[in-house]
Amino acid sequence: MPEKVDLLLTGGAVVTMNAAYDLYENGAVAVQGDSIVAVGPADEVAAAYDAAEVVDCTGQVIMPGLVNAHTHVPMTLLRGLNDDLRLDVWLGYLMPLEREFVTPAFVKLGTRIACAEMIRSGITSFADMYYFEEAIAEETAVIGMRALLGQTILIFPAPDAPTYEDGLILCRRFIEKWNGHELIQPAVSPHAWYTATPELLRACADLARAFDVPLHTHIAETRFEVDSCREQHNMPTIPWNAKNGVLDTKLLAAHCVHLDRGEMYDLEKAGAGVAHCPTSNLKLASGIAAVGQMLEMNLNVGVGTDGPASNNDLDMFEEVRLAALLAKTQSNDPTVLPARQALELATIRGAKAMHMDDVTGSLEVGKRADIAVVDMDGVHNQPHFNNHADAVYSRLVYAAKSTDVAHVMCNGRWLMRDRDLLTVDEAQAKADAAQVAEEIDAFVLERESSPYNKLVLLSGVQRQESFEIQVKVPIADDASVLAAIDGDQLEIVKRSHYKQYDQYFMFDRHDPDAARLRYREDEFVNDAGEVFQARSRLTLIGEEERQAFPNAVMLSRSRFLAEADRTLRFYREYFDPMAEVEVHKDRRRWRVLYQGTDFAINLDDVTRPQMDGYFLEIKSRTWSRTDAERKAELMTELLELLGVDPETAVTEDYAGLAFAAM
Amino acid sequence: MPEKVDLLLTGGAVVTMNAAYDLYENGAVAVQGDSIVAVGPADEVAAAYDAAEVVDCTGQVIMPGLVNAHTHVPMTLLRGLNDDLRLDVWLGYLMPLEREFVTPAFVKLGTRIACAEMIRSGITSFADMYYFEEAIAEETAVIGMRALLGQTILIFPAPDAPTYEDGLILCRRFIEKWNGHELIQPAVSPHAWYTATPELLRACADLARAFDVPLHTHIAETRFEVDSCREQHNMPTIPWNAKNGVLDTKLLAAHCVHLDRGEMYDLEKAGAGVAHCPTSNLKLASGIAAVGQMLEMNLNVGVGTDGPASNNDLDMFEEVRLAALLAKTQSNDPTVLPARQALELATIRGAKAMHMDDVTGSLEVGKRADIAVVDMDGVHNQPHFNNHADAVYSRLVYAAKSTDVAHVMCNGRWLMRDRDLLTVDEAQAKADAAQVAEEIDAFVLERESSPYNKLVLLSGVQRQESFEIQVKVPIADDASVLAAIDGDQLEIVKRSHYKQYDQYFMFDRHDPDAARLRYREDEFVNDAGEVFQARSRLTLIGEEERQAFPNAVMLSRSRFLAEADRTLRFYREYFDPMAEVEVHKDRRRWRVLYQGTDFAINLDDVTRPQMDGYFLEIKSRTWSRTDAERKAELMTELLELLGVDPETAVTEDYAGLAFAAM
Repeated sequence: MPEKVDLLLTGGAVVTMNAAYDLYENGAVAVQGDSIVAVGPADEVAAAYDAAEVVDCTGQVIMPGLVNAHTHVPMTLLRGLNDDLRLDVWLGYLMPLEREFVTPAFVKLGTRIACAEMIRSGITSFADMYYFEEAIAEETAVIGMRALLGQTILIFPAPDAPTYEDGLILCRRFIEKWNGHELIQPAVSPHAWYTATPELLRACADLARAFDVPLHTHIAETRFEVDSCREQHNMPTIPWNAKNGVLDTKLLAAHCVHLDRGEMYDLEKAGAGVAHCPTSNLKLASGIAAVGQMLEMNLNVGVGTDGPASNNDLDMFEEVRLAALLAKTQSNDPTVLPARQALELATIRGAKAMHMDDVTGSLEVGKRADIAVVDMDGVHNQPHFNNHADAVYSRLVYAAKSTDVAHVMCNGRWLMRDRDLLTVDEAQAKADAAQVAEEIDAFVLERESSPYNKLVLLSGVQRQESFEIQVKVPIADDASVLAAIDGDQLEIVKRSHYKQYDQYFMFDRHDPDAARLRYREDEFVNDAGEVFQARSRLTLIGEEERQAFPNAVMLSRSRFLAEADRTLRFYREYFDPMAEVEVHKDRRRWRVLYQGTDFAINLDDVTRPQMDGYFLEIKSRTWSRTDAERKAELMTELLELLGVDPETAVTEDYAGLAFAAM
Repeated sequence: MPEKVDLLLTGGAVVTMNAAYDLYENGAVAVQGDSIVAVGPADEVAAAYDAAEVVDCTGQVIMPGLVNAHTHVPMTLLRGLNDDLRLDVWLGYLMPLEREFVTPAFVKLGTRIACAEMIRSGITSFADMYYFEEAIAEETAVIGMRALLGQTILIFPAPDAPTYEDGLILCRRFIEKWNGHELIQPAVSPHAWYTATPELLRACADLARAFDVPLHTHIAETRFEVDSCREQHNMPTIPWNAKNGVLDTKLLAAHCVHLDRGEMYDLEKAGAGVAHCPTSNLKLASGIAAVGQMLEMNLNVGVGTDGPASNNDLDMFEEVRLAALLAKTQSNDPTVLPARQALELATIRGAKAMHMDDVTGSLEVGKRADIAVVDMDGVHNQPHFNNHADAVYSRLVYAAKSTDVAHVMCNGRWLMRDRDLLTVDEAQAKADAAQVAEEIDAFVLERESSPYNKLVLLSGVQRQESFEIQVKVPIADDASVLAAIDGDQLEIVKRSHYKQYDQYFMFDRHDPDAARLRYREDEFVNDAGEVFQARSRLTLIGEEERQAFPNAVMLSRSRFLAEADRTLRFYREYFDPMAEVEVHKDRRRWRVLYQGTDFAINLDDVTRPQMDGYFLEIKSRTWSRTDAERKAELMTELLELLGVDPETAVTEDYAGLAFAAM
């Protein structure tokens, strides 16, 4: 007596991707509820089950839904916005835009577009990392895809969290809400070690372990990143992440382009997953990951498209083909990453990398019904050879296209039938996206005429983002300050003395706080009072975000630096500012340790415009609100120690003061 | 009064790829006969022309048909047959198969499948190189695509030419017949310098110049090839080709993966085109061509898919995207080969590389109407940004798919409308291809159980192909021979002496000429008669093709060599021969020059099975029938000089003689 089931997919070549790589040339898959209840030869399965719905897959391949192991789905809305740029310029271009546009509604729309594209490409599971991950989860669950979703946490102000502590709180709430959901696996996503402090990494690892959820982060994407890690921490990236607890989690490490064998071994030992993103790594000139070596060590490598701003699509057929091709040239061996193994990366091994292989990645009894049915009759995939079992993998990996995918099911629910999307209103999503694109176009076009873009066009820039607590106090006399500095409560780390000649280009006469460009000549002065070195730099100072603390402010601002290798006259003509402000000052500077904390003290004599007395500035870098509060308190103590009344602090910077004095 | 024309494509974004990169956001193209008569803003063109047919392209891109600068179209019929192999194994697998199956009918069918796929991918022009190019030309012209077709010429026996001289004759006839055709540009295609003699290269270059047609060849595909060239000719590949006249032609050089800057400069100076084949180069682990450098020198680089046996598709959208991505990582600079320039490689620059830019590659008045119309509304290509002019190139290169191509026209004739192919019966072609695949499957499955495949599976092989003229004479006594060798008519280049212990595995008892496997131990003997060195090798000797000359035969045969690192017992069990023949002999060998020509003389004393007297063998490598005739004459003279009667020559080899003696 046949058992009743919901669905029978039958007559196709079933590519199971189970441990034995079982293939059924004329096979069938039976589905009951959200799960697979049978996989095998068509006649056997048909005899054993009586299905409410039977789908004839003759001439097609029935395979596991593909697994996209690393992406940033909302970035579909930034697709093709700015290509062919250097990473720093690209980030400089993108990040302010993200801060302007990224909202829960934005990420939901981006998720919708991405899911539509991914379903069309046969993907049923993906690993994401972005802002407002809560909204991404809601949208993904409604559409019905499976996902590992990581709430991004980093030291810079994010669209959804001004500090990383806010990010951690958001992430904990996100996990509490979604953990155990049938489709959504929440995760902790510190963006990367280089946008984290050790405390942040540690806190993320603790959070991931506390809830037994994966941790999804970027590691070793660029040579520069790895060099920086060695420089800053005297070790490569995996040991540094390990030292901060990251390898003690269910880790999914994206990119891993620049690892040595020891690091690969450590990842394998830690049971970590790697998301290999070949298109993104090529497009940003990051390099080619040594996937062949990783697989020799049996590392769980998946394949990811990365975000559509660096790809520019979410096509796993393209991605897995590229992975298979690149691995051969990377290892100088055309037998590396053959078709079957490449498909494994895009299915079961990708699921392992995401720590979700208990539910997806292969067609096996007991797993969720995550299935793609692929047409094989396109002229681009003719003829079919059948003299060896691996021919079907060759067809799928080297010749099939995402547009060959006919039907997609996730968790037992149809998401696409005969190329019709069933859970996304694609036309509406496209119209909504067009609207967003129009707004972004307007924003960008306005910025086109901005000093920022002109600076980029001129010479390229380096980006610096600072998050600084500071206080500035006018004082009549420097004697008490100098005496206190030489006292025994401060440890002086470094002294310097220089003359600064600043020319500020202002672009908005009515708002002295708006973005401005500074042309600065620094003359370094030795003990004998002689200038021994000079340099010129351009700095574009973004609009500041200020947060007040007692007697101090915390500033978060972005700066774009460029060597100034042309004359002031040239820059004046080129940038055509609305106004200019000149500030000359004599600066004595001390880096000191007070109560074990690092501060910079500037004692400035402003000579142009002539200002009476001196300005005392105390500054310190900070990464979090709690740290800023503590430093604000220490700075108040420090002002008192230097004999200065904290109540007399001013908040304007020199350009503002000088502008007011004009 | 508007001028009457045949066709107006209007309302789309016209991407002209002309020298100014003109774009018309709402543009139109007017076509009369085979040519473009207007390109411009839609309203202007509509006002000026009254068209018999108007195609509304709103929301689409109207662009030049893509140019596939290097392929082997009949190899669609070998797609996916044998992937993920080393080049030597791959060739060893493929070449006997080509000899078995490649006929005019085969190449026509393969061309049909390829053209269907290429038209679907927006390609209107391609550069091919294969056997029976005449048949490819006929099929291509009927289908209506534009092509540069090169008749392959090489020193090995080809399916359509037993010697290269036959190939040259075939090529000349091909050119005479097709030169001046509106779609087909015939070309001369020496396969590569390493499958050519200097005379062959020179003859090809002369032929190309005589008819002013392009010369299409493979250059610098692998590191091994370049190293071999330096070793054999003391120079890299471009100078060697230049030395033999190849750069004095309208050259299209495929691959060019391993060139130095000087070679690139020489190509540029020669006005040569380069066909960059990124997928093929990755898949065979050949490397990544330095396209960024080539473009800095303004070299005419096009993009090619290569044959579908090493790709495995003919998708120029994939190919140009990969070219753009790879160039960035190859040069460690993400700004290299930006989208617009990448598209240029796939259109006008590709046409220049093929020396056909006078008629195709861009949408310009006076050029032939080679046009692709591409849908841009797929969800994978949303949203559209318009804040800079290059956005459309980003969409086309980084996100569009070949399946987005809606209409294709070549030479003013529609080849595809709304994805319907108008000049290929795709269903019939697919059915025919399935039939061929079945035959190949059967051939391969039979071979599966063959010593060849067993040898490949065991250890991989090196392939050698020889084309040899030889004579063998039994003699009673060696005295007159030894005296003559020491005489003054021969110049001795090298002497050697060794003992050979051969074990032949026979797989067909009834045909001693059939393929056999030889296990050979060579013991090298010094002047004192002591063995000073030994080696063991396996050689799979293919069925010989024999051609008789007076007193001599010309043999062409393929051999597959492998180091024999296991015991005879192992090989006996593994290969399970039907019969074995043992031949031991003492061989004295001289390499001599006679009348300036290189010959090998063997004086063999066969000790097992014991044979009376000696065997005298004279051999020489040859590349052509004329050369073989000349050498056969010289060998007759040489036999007389050695005091041996030419009339007593035997034709059987030692295995055959021993087999007969058993």
